[in-house]
Amino acid sequence: MTARNVLFIMCDQLRWDHLGCNGHPTLSTRNVDWLASRGVNFRNAFVQSGVCGPSRTSFYTGRYPASHGTTWNGVPLNLGELTFGEMLAEQGRALVLAGKTHVRPNTRAMKRLAIDGGSEVGRLLGAGGFVEVDRYDGHHDPGAETGYVDWLRRHGYGGERPWSDYVIGALDATGRLVSGYQMRNVHLPARVAKEHSETAYMTTRAVEFIERRGDEPWVMHLSYIKPHWPYMAPAPYHAMYPIGRCLPVHRDRRELDDPHPVLAAYRRQEECVNFMRDEVIDTVRPAYTGLVQEIDDNLGRLWETMERLGRFKDTLVVFTADHGDFLGDHWLGEKEHFYDTVQRIPFIVYDPDPAADATRGRVDERFVESVDAVPTFLDALGLPGHAERIEGRSLLPLTRAGAADDWRDGVFSELDYSFREARRILGRTPWECRAFMARTDRWKYVYWIGDRPQLFDLQADPGELVDLGRDAGHERVREMMKARLFDWFTRLKRRTTMNAQEIEARTATHKQHGVFFGVW
Amino acid sequence: MTARNVLFIMCDQLRWDHLGCNGHPTLSTRNVDWLASRGVNFRNAFVQSGVCGPSRTSFYTGRYPASHGTTWNGVPLNLGELTFGEMLAEQGRALVLAGKTHVRPNTRAMKRLAIDGGSEVGRLLGAGGFVEVDRYDGHHDPGAETGYVDWLRRHGYGGERPWSDYVIGALDATGRLVSGYQMRNVHLPARVAKEHSETAYMTTRAVEFIERRGDEPWVMHLSYIKPHWPYMAPAPYHAMYPIGRCLPVHRDRRELDDPHPVLAAYRRQEECVNFMRDEVIDTVRPAYTGLVQEIDDNLGRLWETMERLGRFKDTLVVFTADHGDFLGDHWLGEKEHFYDTVQRIPFIVYDPDPAADATRGRVDERFVESVDAVPTFLDALGLPGHAERIEGRSLLPLTRAGAADDWRDGVFSELDYSFREARRILGRTPWECRAFMARTDRWKYVYWIGDRPQLFDLQADPGELVDLGRDAGHERVREMMKARLFDWFTRLKRRTTMNAQEIEARTATHKQHGVFFGVW
Repeated sequence: MTARNVLFIMCDQLRWDHLGCNGHPTLSTRNVDWLASRGVNFRNAFVQSGVCGPSRTSFYTGRYPASHGTTWNGVPLNLGELTFGEMLAEQGRALVLAGKTHVRPNTRAMKRLAIDGGSEVGRLLGAGGFVEVDRYDGHHDPGAETGYVDWLRRHGYGGERPWSDYVIGALDATGRLVSGYQMRNVHLPARVAKEHSETAYMTTRAVEFIERRGDEPWVMHLSYIKPHWPYMAPAPYHAMYPIGRCLPVHRDRRELDDPHPVLAAYRRQEECVNFMRDEVIDTVRPAYTGLVQEIDDNLGRLWETMERLGRFKDTLVVFTADHGDFLGDHWLGEKEHFYDTVQRIPFIVYDPDPAADATRGRVDERFVESVDAVPTFLDALGLPGHAERIEGRSLLPLTRAGAADDWRDGVFSELDYSFREARRILGRTPWECRAFMARTDRWKYVYWIGDRPQLFDLQADPGELVDLGRDAGHERVREMMKARLFDWFTRLKRRTTMNAQEIEARTATHKQHGVFFGVW
Repeated sequence: MTARNVLFIMCDQLRWDHLGCNGHPTLSTRNVDWLASRGVNFRNAFVQSGVCGPSRTSFYTGRYPASHGTTWNGVPLNLGELTFGEMLAEQGRALVLAGKTHVRPNTRAMKRLAIDGGSEVGRLLGAGGFVEVDRYDGHHDPGAETGYVDWLRRHGYGGERPWSDYVIGALDATGRLVSGYQMRNVHLPARVAKEHSETAYMTTRAVEFIERRGDEPWVMHLSYIKPHWPYMAPAPYHAMYPIGRCLPVHRDRRELDDPHPVLAAYRRQEECVNFMRDEVIDTVRPAYTGLVQEIDDNLGRLWETMERLGRFKDTLVVFTADHGDFLGDHWLGEKEHFYDTVQRIPFIVYDPDPAADATRGRVDERFVESVDAVPTFLDALGLPGHAERIEGRSLLPLTRAGAADDWRDGVFSELDYSFREARRILGRTPWECRAFMARTDRWKYVYWIGDRPQLFDLQADPGELVDLGRDAGHERVREMMKARLFDWFTRLKRRTTMNAQEIEARTATHKQHGVFFGVW
């Protein structure tokens, strides 16, 4: 069957291992787990980049960063790229947004092409193809793009900057207002009530949209900005998971012996310097875990709405994240690097088709990449697949038949650290800061421009503690993995302006067009 | 100094070795040779693809086909790409065209972005950034884009199709009208007088434009459609070079033993089947050589105009071609493949700057790629270099100082044969037909998706007759050359929407924008 609706839920910076269904020992994500019990839980799903902007652009275009070019946050999308929202728009449908996208309008290209930002196409391009129910990129004092600030005021949170003062604001022991931007404060409860948190607000926007639509079809991206920093959580979530109930930090002293030069440079950046300290880990992990619990609790309201309106009968639901968060693992803070901690994401697909009944509750070990999201949605909606540009694959053959011929046996990811202090520490230009990862079930290989590679044996060393990037006994493995990356490079889709049908129609047809060459 | 004007002359399908200054033993290209004596003759200049469309798009954008995406003739340019003409337009200047570009408008993207084809930007995009004095893509009955057909009529060439009847038409021994589309006829003189040929017409357009401009600055692309097929030449050029004065065919029986599968498929295509026959070679080579002579003779008129108006004092001149023509070499017809016959092009740079006086008449062995054309022009004109997207380098450090630090030591080229009969012969989809070449002074390596590689030792075998693609003794060489290609892939410029200054300004500046992470 063709799904009527798509609900595409993304969390920001949510680690794969912070879900009950993925083995967290204490975190009670009963609503996510329920979805997994009704759908397929892909345990080997990976992002195309461990950074919001490039990862999301891959989610929204079905293409790798090396193809779409948005290799970092705030790098405008090339106007030759086509977003999922535009693919829907050309079919008379819309991609509705509640939450974060991290899209920046390509104002330079729009000016160059004389596209009025206020025109229909200008608005769509400026919003990355989304039609905004409520756009909220989070992480800083919100502007007029979201109704959140007004909503806070209507609920009694006054002052000039209610987000700073209440949502990431807390009162310390002396009654002084302190900020969640400082990690030392995130053991305190936010001054916002949980009913008025960012997560609650955006869930309500989604619930209202679904109710309002009735039986009209829709496609919605519900994009939570949590558990991303600032890590401040409202009560009771701030204190729900004391450090003893959190996942322990995963790191080893050996990792600091002769580390990879780029990692060494990152560990001189503020977030890593801090996350190398136990005090920081012990303060942040409880808040982070609580923020995940808060999302799961809110999903309960969403599921109730969906169930009440019969939407689980006709809606494809995907629950995922844009990348993880080190939280001190591997002596790192934040994200970006190629450890599974950051690269592996939750990816649960609920497929309403009765053909998917046989796979409900299944845990699927096959490799999924974030570029698979758009082709899965298009497939579910019965819309054109844009194979000339989309580099991912529909997952419906896996949810429905449960089997697919010739499925991929590895994944790829990328990093561009030109915008980071690490670039200056290493004395590099913005053209020398690219890295490319190939990962299989056994090996993870990272190629760094201008630096030695990294290699991990995921079988012998699933925790990725021993870098074999220079190990003499693994040269053949590195060559094999580099060859895999090479093959990937050769197959990236560059020729996006003609589709297969057009190419077929033009193959060896010059004579039909009155052109003759090589004729005797 | 900053050059006032740029004259960018391209021939279509002109082999490197069909010029006196490049060693042709009988062909008298005194005008090209004169330019070489006043400029720098780059003997190791190579195209980015041995096909008109992708090669020209690399010339016009400064980017490799893997970056610009126009991998074949007629594949519309991605609107996210920026052509030289647009780079000039944004500086209030114009790129004037007299002749061929092979550009096709991206009407689908223009429709998607609601760009009116009749608007200023629409016209510029539709013409690939060129402002057309006279556009003439050649090789088939011309339409209204050129004034050539009317001009022919005014000069007495009547009937419905004067191009078919006179320009590529000839009378055989029985007085019957025959066509230059059939190679058997190209020993005959065209029915057009040499003063009215395509080459003469377009030279006159360029001469008139230069005269009309006076001392106003200009940038012109004079783009001849010869010596490309149809190979019919007007008298006396059709008979000026009997086969004994032409370059002998270069091929070896060994090349047909166990040939590379893609080459084997090509040799089943009509143009190769025919060019494997001596009769075809003996008929076509004289006409081809005569057509080159005709271009050179016409350049004399152009040089006279330039000299008379003082334009050699303030004009940078480049003379080049989009690729060569096998004419039976290597048992092949046409082009596309990676032998130097097709990939190596004439590339002569006349630099008016007195700083270039020291290099006048020099033969430079350093590697030049067609992506160097645009950065050379921008550099000469003193305009912004678009380093965020341009993948070539200005040649002015070579023409002026005569030396450049860290110059490249190899070149790259590509092929997409999805549109050729060879694809069907090999049973491939349009996603499996890509090849990538890396060439140094010693080695040429070609990687083919789904096929064995090719390797030639250019020192031991400068004629490229022995393919070492499977030779057990050369595995290390193949690995080395493949690593060179890999490095090239990693450095292709994808992140084109932000320049270096913008990246510098945004490096590690999140706190200045009120965003804090990793702060204790």
